Amino acid sequence: MFDKWSKTALLLDFYGNLLTDKQRLIMSYHYEEDMSLSEISEELNISRQAVHDIVRRSEKILAEYEEKLGLVQRFLLQKEKLERIKKILSREAANEDIKMVLRLIDDLIEM
Amino acid sequence: MFDKWSKTALLLDFYGNLLTDKQRLIMSYHYEEDMSLSEISEELNISRQAVHDIVRRSEKILAEYEEKLGLVQRFLLQKEKLERIKKILSREAANEDIKMVLRLIDDLIEM
Repeated sequence: MFDKWSKTALLLDFYGNLLTDKQRLIMSYHYEEDMSLSEISEELNISRQAVHDIVRRSEKILAEYEEKLGLVQRFLLQKEKLERIKKILSREAANEDIKMVLRLIDDLIEM
Repeated sequence: MFDKWSKTALLLDFYGNLLTDKQRLIMSYHYEEDMSLSEISEELNISRQAVHDIVRRSEKILAEYEEKLGLVQRFLLQKEKLERIKKILSREAANEDIKMVLRLIDDLIEM
């Protein structure tokens, strides 16, 4: 249900601040701004191989944090439950209280 | 609203797996099983001063992770929103759909 790319982008969102500045920058170029390894290599004036190695190493670090903390997994399970709640509540969406609750739930999903 | 003790226990819950086994054991004795530093010192047969140093060092490590990741802060804000949602929905608690939603929200708060 979740491809490797989106999963890594989410890991970066949660644990990115545990990377070094350089690792985070390169990962952000690649996973958030969708730049290719060659484009990053030109942008930073380092070899494509070096960019490749930093990306692989950073992916490994992020995966290790997730293995230890499991916070992305927890987040995804919470999101799934919130979507279920929204679906149930939308049956009652004419009610003003419920409208307010649906807005609060959307805030939660965005957090 | 949140004393230092409860805050540290929560940090331990989120980031405890990033400590060494020894740090985690001592922090768990102290913050989860409520053992005093002297009791831990006897239990592990190390000096009270060593236990004290490990506790302080571990608290610092946990606080540093929170400063970088802010996941406990995010969790507390989510919990506050969920409590607000519960309060609003409890006005409608005769409705079967709403009862189900309230159960789902309790699950989320416990996660």
